[in-house]
Amino acid sequence: MSAAAVSFASRLAAAWKATNSLVCVGLDPEPKKFPDQFRDAPGGIFEFNKAIVDATRDLVCAYKPQFAHYAAHGAEMQLEHTIVYTKATAPNAIVILDSKRGDIGSTAEQYAHEAFERYGADAVTVNPYLGRDSVEPFLKHEDKGVIILCRTSNPGAKDFQDLNVGPDRKLFQHVAETAAKDWNSAGNCMLVVGATYPEELADIRARVGDPPLPGPARVGDLPFLVPGVGAQGGDVSKVMAAGRTRAGTGLVVSSSRAILYASPGN
Amino acid sequence: MSAAAVSFASRLAAAWKATNSLVCVGLDPEPKKFPDQFRDAPGGIFEFNKAIVDATRDLVCAYKPQFAHYAAHGAEMQLEHTIVYTKATAPNAIVILDSKRGDIGSTAEQYAHEAFERYGADAVTVNPYLGRDSVEPFLKHEDKGVIILCRTSNPGAKDFQDLNVGPDRKLFQHVAETAAKDWNSAGNCMLVVGATYPEELADIRARVGDPPLPGPARVGDLPFLVPGVGAQGGDVSKVMAAGRTRAGTGLVVSSSRAILYASPGN
Repeated sequence: MSAAAVSFASRLAAAWKATNSLVCVGLDPEPKKFPDQFRDAPGGIFEFNKAIVDATRDLVCAYKPQFAHYAAHGAEMQLEHTIVYTKATAPNAIVILDSKRGDIGSTAEQYAHEAFERYGADAVTVNPYLGRDSVEPFLKHEDKGVIILCRTSNPGAKDFQDLNVGPDRKLFQHVAETAAKDWNSAGNCMLVVGATYPEELADIRARVGDPPLPGPARVGDLPFLVPGVGAQGGDVSKVMAAGRTRAGTGLVVSSSRAILYASPGN
Repeated sequence: MSAAAVSFASRLAAAWKATNSLVCVGLDPEPKKFPDQFRDAPGGIFEFNKAIVDATRDLVCAYKPQFAHYAAHGAEMQLEHTIVYTKATAPNAIVILDSKRGDIGSTAEQYAHEAFERYGADAVTVNPYLGRDSVEPFLKHEDKGVIILCRTSNPGAKDFQDLNVGPDRKLFQHVAETAAKDWNSAGNCMLVVGATYPEELADIRARVGDPPLPGPARVGDLPFLVPGVGAQGGDVSKVMAAGRTRAGTGLVVSSSRAILYASPGN
């Protein structure tokens, strides 16, 4: 990064303000579910995404392509094209590469290069299991967001994330506080917190700052990426009550399947 | 999978027997470190890997391409070619796609398709942080190996993996026992245990069966993928003493940088 680069926190704040939205569209292409004109067309994944971006760009603060949906189809080039198109036509939105990377430091350097140089994403999702040196190569890009998995939206989230690692302290709570206290010196961390767990969402908001109650703003306030609204059953009103900050922001609420395949028959 | 498919456990046992080796070569191409003839050549990553496979195929039981090193360079096609070439010319070895996937069930299905159908890998590395439903889409491929991150080789491994989640029970120990008891019904689980932590390696071997001491063989014996020998400093003799089973196998010991860039000047 350069000293003159705009910080990620500023970019995210600008995205919320310019779009007046906390909504993120997940770009998780499933060609089998596409309308006929895209299904078997060459470049159909890109064309489908383009249509989604064209239809939503005034309504959302972020786009989140899910890496697996491109990797399964050998469609990395269409992912590159999707991000270029999104940044060009929806310049107020941030683009999150949802690839949940997590590897040793020297390998994480390669993944940071992939996310920020090859794909030009504004932020990337990262798995914390390997600890600090697996996250640092991302963190040092101060103009880019590093979105740490904390409490995920799936049923198995409880298997390890809910284990008690101290008195009144679960693993996901420890991950949240570690990110806020130790990893966020550049203000470029976020947390993944599933919409399907509003109680945990409120708990994490209280731990990592600026809860929607009177009191001083805290150091280390973290915004949340909140998947799980829509097909996974998360309730938007509960998410807003539990996770929004006093500024009325602090959330990037993502829906994929409910938006992408909203036409009849899906 | 089909009912007639050979189980992963049988394939791994056959690989150890046919090659009389526990060694795995990590295929982590770094073009900057390549010899001149490969560095800027079109398809240089594949050509470099081909030379490594040609030089080692009689000596090793497995090859492990590290996904990040291809993704950073937009070299997915060369990764595909590398795996096709390896399987054709080193048919006794297994091919491990080291991509450390970890995502919700519906997305994990896409990653399983990527690893086993697109790339044709025999096994894939998986991060356990998202719990059971993130691993199941891989496990149901009974002829494929699912290699769960347990105690990784990096310095930050201690940050979360060493947290106490119960009396005398750390997170990595809990992951190991969960994999052995709950996830290994098809016998296709392995664990990643770093060579840099021989004490933890011995501890895990004692927990998941068949330690190198007299006693009955246990249900749920798990083989280990052991990275961290070589550039990361792991000691092979300590690994062998701590992790080998009574059968003299149970390990796939991987080295990447020390093998790939062994020529003078690296």
